[in-house]
Amino acid sequence: MSVGTTHAESVARRSTIMDGNSYRPLDEAAAPPLVARRQRLLSPTYRLFYHEPVHAVRASGARIWDADGVEYLDMYNNVASIGHAHPRVVEAVHDQMQMINTHTRYLHEAVVDYAEAFLGTMPEEIDRAMFVCTGSEANDLALRIAEHATGNRGVIVTAEAYHGNTGLTSDISPALGSGSPLGAHVRVIPAPDRYRVRTDDLAAWFAARMQEAIDDLSDAGFGVSSFVADTLFSSDGVHPAAPGDLVPAVEALRRAGGVLIADEVQPGFARTGSHFWGFQRHGLVPDLVTTGKPMGNGIPIAGVAARATVLEPFALAVPYFNTFGGNPVSIAAASAVLQVIGEERMQESNARTGAALLAGLRELAGRHDAVGDVRGAGLYVGVELVADGDAPDGPRGLAVVNALRERRVLTSVAGPHSNVLKIRPPYAFGAGDIPRFLEALDGALTATRA
Amino acid sequence: MSVGTTHAESVARRSTIMDGNSYRPLDEAAAPPLVARRQRLLSPTYRLFYHEPVHAVRASGARIWDADGVEYLDMYNNVASIGHAHPRVVEAVHDQMQMINTHTRYLHEAVVDYAEAFLGTMPEEIDRAMFVCTGSEANDLALRIAEHATGNRGVIVTAEAYHGNTGLTSDISPALGSGSPLGAHVRVIPAPDRYRVRTDDLAAWFAARMQEAIDDLSDAGFGVSSFVADTLFSSDGVHPAAPGDLVPAVEALRRAGGVLIADEVQPGFARTGSHFWGFQRHGLVPDLVTTGKPMGNGIPIAGVAARATVLEPFALAVPYFNTFGGNPVSIAAASAVLQVIGEERMQESNARTGAALLAGLRELAGRHDAVGDVRGAGLYVGVELVADGDAPDGPRGLAVVNALRERRVLTSVAGPHSNVLKIRPPYAFGAGDIPRFLEALDGALTATRA
Repeated sequence: MSVGTTHAESVARRSTIMDGNSYRPLDEAAAPPLVARRQRLLSPTYRLFYHEPVHAVRASGARIWDADGVEYLDMYNNVASIGHAHPRVVEAVHDQMQMINTHTRYLHEAVVDYAEAFLGTMPEEIDRAMFVCTGSEANDLALRIAEHATGNRGVIVTAEAYHGNTGLTSDISPALGSGSPLGAHVRVIPAPDRYRVRTDDLAAWFAARMQEAIDDLSDAGFGVSSFVADTLFSSDGVHPAAPGDLVPAVEALRRAGGVLIADEVQPGFARTGSHFWGFQRHGLVPDLVTTGKPMGNGIPIAGVAARATVLEPFALAVPYFNTFGGNPVSIAAASAVLQVIGEERMQESNARTGAALLAGLRELAGRHDAVGDVRGAGLYVGVELVADGDAPDGPRGLAVVNALRERRVLTSVAGPHSNVLKIRPPYAFGAGDIPRFLEALDGALTATRA
Repeated sequence: MSVGTTHAESVARRSTIMDGNSYRPLDEAAAPPLVARRQRLLSPTYRLFYHEPVHAVRASGARIWDADGVEYLDMYNNVASIGHAHPRVVEAVHDQMQMINTHTRYLHEAVVDYAEAFLGTMPEEIDRAMFVCTGSEANDLALRIAEHATGNRGVIVTAEAYHGNTGLTSDISPALGSGSPLGAHVRVIPAPDRYRVRTDDLAAWFAARMQEAIDDLSDAGFGVSSFVADTLFSSDGVHPAAPGDLVPAVEALRRAGGVLIADEVQPGFARTGSHFWGFQRHGLVPDLVTTGKPMGNGIPIAGVAARATVLEPFALAVPYFNTFGGNPVSIAAASAVLQVIGEERMQESNARTGAALLAGLRELAGRHDAVGDVRGAGLYVGVELVADGDAPDGPRGLAVVNALRERRVLTSVAGPHSNVLKIRPPYAFGAGDIPRFLEALDGALTATRA
């Protein structure tokens, strides 16, 4: 049972690594030459996926090829979100690079056009945009905007949340473990886990957890500034929950003076199929929206969208300039992504392909006791592996991920126990790819039986 | 006299804008359509250079063209450092984008090769690299590494320093003004200003200021973690100082247990001509080196280079992963930049061109009382404008910048009084461009006489 698991317990289980599927050779001398050079030159913070790392040299759509020409099905990458090496993005970047790449202290039409298109995907209440370079920068900025807007410091996140690598965002990222302690102004609440939480009313249960955190922050003198939420609760183990599950909690947040920061780095840009943004799936209108990874298909760009009234106290007091933020080349990539999603009707295809994938996984789950739960929204699916009924089986999760890699399918794990397969392919993944994935997973589950 | 000027005084003089040369139309209705749309869609934090903004659409080398086809000489941009739209960078990015763009959890040779080349430009003591996306991310990370290495929190910076836009780096950036107060753990010292500080021994004077800050941090219980320094002290008004001027201060810092973070966002990558890195000009070997803007010629990439022993306490305790950091496309841009600097001997040409530019400016200074001082290192020059002898003349600085813009030369101002012309062209700026610049400056100084 993950509910009731404390952060300290989860850290103790996991050693100091953030992601269960990460690798660093203990014996550098025995490592392949490229791995050994990497170890010698890069920081020890650098990790590799898989017991046997993938030396990726080429990619297209939902396929990656390694240095030996071996082809892998990519079930994991949300950076090259619309598909690896998408020709529209490649050409948009190339065209712009030949023209000019400078910053927003000069006038440039593209950043204004993109701001209009980007805000056009959002509820009308959200009417101002800022562009930065990474999801971490976006969340770091959003936290500062929320503090200015509310006059409060307290931040609420879920128990295994990850919101970034800067000082400010690490402070609110329990997924980083005990080596990166939470700020004194941070409170965690459990994710809305429909598999493990036993209740008739998850929305009321989640709102009660929110109220406890609000009260605790109030007692400690911090007040509540924001609830920062990836509405798929990916790093908590992929919990799409159900529309409505978050609404009473957000009402409690707002009654207490806090604002909602929707971290769309995971669910955003049409991934969930039913909606363009994750918060829309939940029937919420946030105060601040942050974006990252999928925005530029790999070219660094991220954003903060905000209600003008929420943004204003920060914007009028604090000079903020981000040199690379909104540069014409990153904007060209982001514009191409937005256009391709619309023209190729990717939101609709993500909904269709995701539904078929979910159905296939549920059929497969019936044949494997190890699969405790299958859940998802569009092209974001979690497959929870268990033992002895419903105990989280982290070792099996890692074994399956490595067995899938042997079968030339790339994915990874999520959740405090590393027992949830995180299935998040580029949008180029189509219905025709589903049988290959299901066959590989069937084989990996069979091969990793105790 | 800027020495003795408090931060609060300098903020009061400047209103809330970071850079004297920044513009936001008060009357949106009267603004040109693109400016009005920009105001309506982007955050109020966005500012434009010049009373009459430049609508930049194309650039090459040290030239920018606006939407009407008017050509400008670019004397300011250190992002497109080796030259706007450099074909080697354009092609390197295009080639890599067609192959793959993913992150460092997969093996890729390019990031390892680049780490080797990057560290190869540094003293051998600095032997580990980390790649991030912006100079702000680099400094944010370096501050955290320094805290882990020293066990202390206190940070020392110069009085008008700017080191980034994240929460942690804003805390140490007095240039942001009173809207963004310094952290309680931050102390400022004056920059080593050879024009205004009256002393026979600037090195001893600067070390005494450092010792005062160290003692103050110690008394306050913070201890000293780091001194973060742009060794050209650009935002303090461009103070190259002289080799040796910083050495005793850094010795005092290290005696107190602090580490030196060299912020190379301004002086790095061969700009100063005599050396590849700014800290080398000063005969220093830092503990941490941060890079940003010029690293990828406009493609977002930044880095932290470190002594392994300084990095280790952080790296072993804290999981750190930067999704876009070290991606193959950003690395391709950075590799091309490093190669072009070497092959085209840009360090040497920056030294030569910078010396000729300095000589020309000094000759011109003899004909204009308003020029109080001309100083620089390579292609980074400050021209300090004064009135009534040596009083800083900020209004004149802004008038000259706008008069230069009318003469199709783009630059800006630095320093607490906005009275220092910051002359920092791309490396494509050559000796042949000097007469055009000097003639425009001569005209601008003449036209702006009271």
